[in-house]
Amino acid sequence: MTLIVQKFGGTSVADPDRMKNVARHVAETRRQGNDVVVVVSAMGKATDNLVELARQVSSNPQGREMDMLLTTGERISMSLLCMALNDLGCEAMSFTGSQVGIITDTSHTKAKILEIKGDRVREALGQGKVAVIAGFQGVSTEREVTTLGRGGSDTTAVAMAAALKADVCEIYTDVTGVFSADPRMVPQARKLGWLSFDEMLEMAGAGSKVLALRSVEFARNHDVPIHVRSSFTWEQGTWVSGEDNEGRRKMEDPIISGVVHDVGESKMTLLGVPDKPGVSALLFESLAKANVNVDMIVQNTSIEGTTDISFTLPMADVKTAEPILNDVAKKVGASGVTQDDNIAKLSLVGAGMKSSPGIAAKMFRILAENQVNIEMISTSTIRISVVVRREHLQIALRALHSAFNLDSGEDYSAPLPERK
Amino acid sequence: MTLIVQKFGGTSVADPDRMKNVARHVAETRRQGNDVVVVVSAMGKATDNLVELARQVSSNPQGREMDMLLTTGERISMSLLCMALNDLGCEAMSFTGSQVGIITDTSHTKAKILEIKGDRVREALGQGKVAVIAGFQGVSTEREVTTLGRGGSDTTAVAMAAALKADVCEIYTDVTGVFSADPRMVPQARKLGWLSFDEMLEMAGAGSKVLALRSVEFARNHDVPIHVRSSFTWEQGTWVSGEDNEGRRKMEDPIISGVVHDVGESKMTLLGVPDKPGVSALLFESLAKANVNVDMIVQNTSIEGTTDISFTLPMADVKTAEPILNDVAKKVGASGVTQDDNIAKLSLVGAGMKSSPGIAAKMFRILAENQVNIEMISTSTIRISVVVRREHLQIALRALHSAFNLDSGEDYSAPLPERK
Repeated sequence: MTLIVQKFGGTSVADPDRMKNVARHVAETRRQGNDVVVVVSAMGKATDNLVELARQVSSNPQGREMDMLLTTGERISMSLLCMALNDLGCEAMSFTGSQVGIITDTSHTKAKILEIKGDRVREALGQGKVAVIAGFQGVSTEREVTTLGRGGSDTTAVAMAAALKADVCEIYTDVTGVFSADPRMVPQARKLGWLSFDEMLEMAGAGSKVLALRSVEFARNHDVPIHVRSSFTWEQGTWVSGEDNEGRRKMEDPIISGVVHDVGESKMTLLGVPDKPGVSALLFESLAKANVNVDMIVQNTSIEGTTDISFTLPMADVKTAEPILNDVAKKVGASGVTQDDNIAKLSLVGAGMKSSPGIAAKMFRILAENQVNIEMISTSTIRISVVVRREHLQIALRALHSAFNLDSGEDYSAPLPERK
Repeated sequence: MTLIVQKFGGTSVADPDRMKNVARHVAETRRQGNDVVVVVSAMGKATDNLVELARQVSSNPQGREMDMLLTTGERISMSLLCMALNDLGCEAMSFTGSQVGIITDTSHTKAKILEIKGDRVREALGQGKVAVIAGFQGVSTEREVTTLGRGGSDTTAVAMAAALKADVCEIYTDVTGVFSADPRMVPQARKLGWLSFDEMLEMAGAGSKVLALRSVEFARNHDVPIHVRSSFTWEQGTWVSGEDNEGRRKMEDPIISGVVHDVGESKMTLLGVPDKPGVSALLFESLAKANVNVDMIVQNTSIEGTTDISFTLPMADVKTAEPILNDVAKKVGASGVTQDDNIAKLSLVGAGMKSSPGIAAKMFRILAENQVNIEMISTSTIRISVVVRREHLQIALRALHSAFNLDSGEDYSAPLPERK
């Protein structure tokens, strides 16, 4: 029998009507003879509302109480979905992270999964029931309720699929799959039929919001095939799986899978830094210690013994980083600190890049032809990212999307991967 | 050291500002050197909203999922209150029913408490922390999350006070205590200083909403003194305790403690029932089996071999009772079934009644003088209840309140009971 894990995000269960839609979708999957495990997020903006309540009663909520507070959102979703399923004659049973036995470490608000027991879930499946699981949460080795951080429900779904050796982990979202670019920015953007784990990882890292980076890492490490699709239709979405499915890529597939952008980062610069060893180490060690996620780093060539060090970081981390930069500037005798929110990062991602030289050169030429100035560059084997002015983002995205043949009308949907 | 259990209802924690008020009140109690355990209800209308969500996704939600859903309300409250307390520098830790070890039977949505372990609460108190407990919930012997039914947070508070041998269980509410009548109906109503458990039980049974009946039963059985008071002031409220505190009642106290009313009941009548043995048994056994809570029962004198049987029941139970009555009517050959929502029950309650004959006669005379017709009567040793037309309720309440000397301006607050 095929075992399918289905994960529904907050938008898919935002109100009772959508919840009932999801129930019909799950019941139909079950009716087709599959074993089904469902992972749900909190309804709509429920988590944001709870965070706001916490902010209103406390200037510094403790992690333990925050985790207890936030986990209620997914519990509400899972109970309601079970009720709706039972109403359709589809027997279902809900389980909290603790009831499933999702054992985590003790880091409140960003716990890591250590082990999944899952006995009660297997028992429910054995009785022919659909198991509905609260996403985003676990129970620590100290028996405290923990959460896995934002995007944690994707991680719960992939981890459950790995633990139960599911045939596929279906991630339902409000778009129909992963696109070659954000369709709101590039109208010609096409849905991708298949991506390798590595490509999806680079896309998530470059700003694609469809899948949480951490869940893709988990899927790659445990070889869990992911199917990203829409909860509003039954059409095929985007498959993400291992390189051994590479053969399913069509011969004429473009070298580049997609153009991804991110406007959630800020650029900070330490100006006039004396050019001597240890300055970068001091700066980035201090930032790491404060859990600031530094993304791209650029250091200028030294002019007259001083240099500038720039880096990008999530806007949310700027407040934490500022005093650290000022402190480091004072210690090393830098001339100043600047911060710039008006930037955008855009990235080309594609496994085809590995065997096609000159992609970077072509990218830079296209941007130059469109009068887009490049401020920072970073690359991996299958990704090239640049930072540009925010106002140049849209023209840059569209130009690159066309230049790398992503506009061509035909969708290159791959067939379903073989079920094991 | 004095151990105080404080219970705050939904109105007291309805929004972040009120939550912070409660936190200040709890922190002040702790600052005065008391050990404090707090029990909280869900915020404002949170439980009603969750019930409504369930109704929108399912015509018949299962108890297990309903309990999981509803228990989130108190979890939200307890986490937020802990955050607010910690923000005030008052160390606090939250516990779900399951974390406290409130072990119940397996009756979902109306579970009974079997045992309270409380080890983690004692540990938190030992560390000088305030323990904040989610009301209304427990964990069953089958390890499922359960709820104690409406008013369950009062029961949680009293049960915790009993288990921890607390000095007092303070029930905070939006009124300043128990009154001689509902002040919205009788402007002269006075706050009562002290009531015996038996009087409070009769009042709760007769329709007083201040304390849940079941929590008063629990308090009586475990001799837990209750102090009903307002969360908005520090003034003395109403004490409820055992008869051994009877001495605290002042000599000149009225014989009657209060006039209580209830407009939440309906009257159903089985008409033209053949007057033979076994009819009442069949009727009330069938209703009991369906969990219908029958209150007052009246059977007319037999006229020409047939009689009418009337009874009152909560309006919420009418839908369940209707088919049962129709069924019984058919079986015993009754001539019909009627139902009447336009009634009100009013009750005189007072321990003084026991030693003062003629209270009932006086009550009936007052009502007659005010043209109020009595439709049903029932009595206990310290209570007399009558059913009247709904439109006569207010005039009847005011007349009785005056006639039994409850209007006298002076409050008869009793001193604090001795702390053991």
